[in-house]
Amino acid sequence: MAQKPSIPKGTRDFSPTEVAKRNYIFSTIKEVFETYGFQPIETPSFENSSTLMGKYGEEGDRLIFKILNSGDFLKKVEDDLLISKDSIKITSKISEKALRYDLTVPFARYVVQHQNEIEFPFKRYQMQPVWRADRPQKGRFREFYQCDADVVGSKGLWQEVEFVQLYDAVFSKLKLTGTTIKLNNRKILAGIAEIIGAKDKLIDFTVALDKLDKIGAEGVTKEMLDKGISEAAIQKVEPLFNFKGSNQEKLKQLQQLLTTSEEGTKGVEDLKFIVDNIEMLGLQTANLDIDVTLARGLNYYTGAIYEVTAPQGVKMGSIGGGGRYDDLTGIFGLKDMSGVGISFGLDRIYLVLEELNLFDAVELPKPKVLFINFGEKEAAFCMKALVTLRKNHIKSELYPDAAKMKKQLNYANRRQIPYVVLVGASEVENNKYTLKNMQTGEQQVCTLKELLEITS
Amino acid sequence: MAQKPSIPKGTRDFSPTEVAKRNYIFSTIKEVFETYGFQPIETPSFENSSTLMGKYGEEGDRLIFKILNSGDFLKKVEDDLLISKDSIKITSKISEKALRYDLTVPFARYVVQHQNEIEFPFKRYQMQPVWRADRPQKGRFREFYQCDADVVGSKGLWQEVEFVQLYDAVFSKLKLTGTTIKLNNRKILAGIAEIIGAKDKLIDFTVALDKLDKIGAEGVTKEMLDKGISEAAIQKVEPLFNFKGSNQEKLKQLQQLLTTSEEGTKGVEDLKFIVDNIEMLGLQTANLDIDVTLARGLNYYTGAIYEVTAPQGVKMGSIGGGGRYDDLTGIFGLKDMSGVGISFGLDRIYLVLEELNLFDAVELPKPKVLFINFGEKEAAFCMKALVTLRKNHIKSELYPDAAKMKKQLNYANRRQIPYVVLVGASEVENNKYTLKNMQTGEQQVCTLKELLEITS
Repeated sequence: MAQKPSIPKGTRDFSPTEVAKRNYIFSTIKEVFETYGFQPIETPSFENSSTLMGKYGEEGDRLIFKILNSGDFLKKVEDDLLISKDSIKITSKISEKALRYDLTVPFARYVVQHQNEIEFPFKRYQMQPVWRADRPQKGRFREFYQCDADVVGSKGLWQEVEFVQLYDAVFSKLKLTGTTIKLNNRKILAGIAEIIGAKDKLIDFTVALDKLDKIGAEGVTKEMLDKGISEAAIQKVEPLFNFKGSNQEKLKQLQQLLTTSEEGTKGVEDLKFIVDNIEMLGLQTANLDIDVTLARGLNYYTGAIYEVTAPQGVKMGSIGGGGRYDDLTGIFGLKDMSGVGISFGLDRIYLVLEELNLFDAVELPKPKVLFINFGEKEAAFCMKALVTLRKNHIKSELYPDAAKMKKQLNYANRRQIPYVVLVGASEVENNKYTLKNMQTGEQQVCTLKELLEITS
Repeated sequence: MAQKPSIPKGTRDFSPTEVAKRNYIFSTIKEVFETYGFQPIETPSFENSSTLMGKYGEEGDRLIFKILNSGDFLKKVEDDLLISKDSIKITSKISEKALRYDLTVPFARYVVQHQNEIEFPFKRYQMQPVWRADRPQKGRFREFYQCDADVVGSKGLWQEVEFVQLYDAVFSKLKLTGTTIKLNNRKILAGIAEIIGAKDKLIDFTVALDKLDKIGAEGVTKEMLDKGISEAAIQKVEPLFNFKGSNQEKLKQLQQLLTTSEEGTKGVEDLKFIVDNIEMLGLQTANLDIDVTLARGLNYYTGAIYEVTAPQGVKMGSIGGGGRYDDLTGIFGLKDMSGVGISFGLDRIYLVLEELNLFDAVELPKPKVLFINFGEKEAAFCMKALVTLRKNHIKSELYPDAAKMKKQLNYANRRQIPYVVLVGASEVENNKYTLKNMQTGEQQVCTLKELLEITS
């Protein structure tokens, strides 16, 4: 016997139930994206290596899956180079395509390549898999989906407001209540950097500040001092050590704190625009929370920064994030194209919904009606009924073989098919169907019309 | 300025309109699959090379895209081997994963790997991209979708009947009327081979016979003689030279022709079962046609063979195909698992629907309502209306910047947005909206309730 087959580590098969649950999340996000005016695009799974390489830092380059050139790919590689076994140099000779690492760079490439066909501002969404040669671990895979929505070609802050609404709309629709949409602004971080007198200390600063709940003001101060942030600087930003209260209260504190920083003050104004308008418009189930420790993709974002966390009590990292980046397409030669976008973390959302039993409403991919197969003549009679049921969109099937009745009923039970139809010689003769409700065990003889009504 | 970016040859970007049209086809097929009791699965984009290699013949092996191992992939390759530049041998040392080449082998792998979780007979469908390093040409891509439905674990012929119905249901739903579902059976071909006395001549025979319409009986006879088929053999199968009429007439001819071949006779019986039952059940818009020259995947199929062709007048190869294969999972060590399946050719169906203007009904991904942005205060008023519209699933958006009115209206025109809402100071004051119908040019002042009603 051959070896039992397996799949590469970090990849997954999805069973029918898993596909149905995943599609429920996808279609919910998709519906909200479209309601907000976003349009779908799709890009190829692999791009030219030159499109991807150098866009994600050295670590990113390493994690990109490269595709081997077809045919006699070694023919033109020099012997000396081969013997050197310099993997990076040789890779560029034997591979010119690579699997998509995220959706942002392909999107930037798409915008530049198709700039003459696109109406700007361009609101696009994209839901496709990406691949990373990361070490697999719980919740981290080598193939996973990203669900992104971005707007390019506008600097208007209303988009920032809309993305808060959009997160709220999606999670409310998924019945995942109590999420927190954390909000920050790169300009506020820049302002804080100004005030502590060292841009290079900013990450140390936010990392330390983020531990406030765990180690207290004293612990945070100590860590900051250890990292070389001066006592004078720490004193200046002390208000952040007691950064609590409503968003409006936080805004007031930030305003005072950053009053000497022009950029910081602009950041507070931007943040206030979003907070004020969200208060005016209201949210369904999510909370909006200013969080100055939020610094994801610091080198990337230039304005708003978002991160969404699961409801309290669910242990899970962020389930979404995004922000504004002022020069999305510059890497491909198209300047002055500001963008802002958000992403949904499908796999983590899946785990959260599973933990909270929020997949109840998902219709699993199984037939509603199974016709038991008693033989050729009876099956032919059933097939006629199936034509009618299926025309009325009732998921239904005939057991394909005239197997033992017990086997067929076991099949129905294991697949949790709610209705079974039994047609023997007498049913054929009387043009009737015996319908069995598999939950209650009740049986009734009925006409095709009644069968249709009951199972509809 | 950087070089304008491009994508690898044989791959495609899909614009919002293209995505919408493709999704229309996908969702139509998906809906019919589910109505017929099929369940979705998904498998990873790449498989272990050992799963794929050797399953598609030498040519197939060449066309499989291989993924380079991560990290220092050359470290363990011997110098001698490297210098030999033997691409095939070296590939197996530096690549252990490869992109999916079709959906059938991954499905077979899935069935074997998950055999203990699956209820047999297992009716699965799968709609995912596959990759082939083929030379790109019109209608042939290096990345393309396959849409497959298969049943494994049953030899019942009702499945064969259902697949004819399923093809008819999908194409009827797509309003693609007049397709022809061609039907053959491997056993009939085996019977013909018996009669012409040489199995190895079967492909030459069917290829020649297929030219009947073009070169006539005389031409076909000549070609057969050229290929080494004896005159006596040709005489025996002469009835196939005038193989016309209804399916029942064809069945009669085949019955007589193959009466001395046990396998051929079984093939006629199988074919008759399908034809009789389809006649009893009826089709919506497709034609079923016995075609003994149909020999696709000859080495693969063991029973029924299907191929669907576009309506007369549309120049296009097959838009679907499939058949029964008696040993699907044997390659992975699970014996006696008969399968039957069909596939839809998405890209070709797309081209046919485009040619026949059958995408009219597709809702394009664009908003129904655009709110013109006259400034912060007016925009805030519009945003409140947007909350209501979006809660009622009306695709709508605010132009993100207070740009010149002309620019905003041009945007609405180019995107063919049917309704534009204009809110200036007086509208805000009166709590009203000026709604403009972009098709008729008509304008009216209305309340939010009226706005909702008109745009719903």
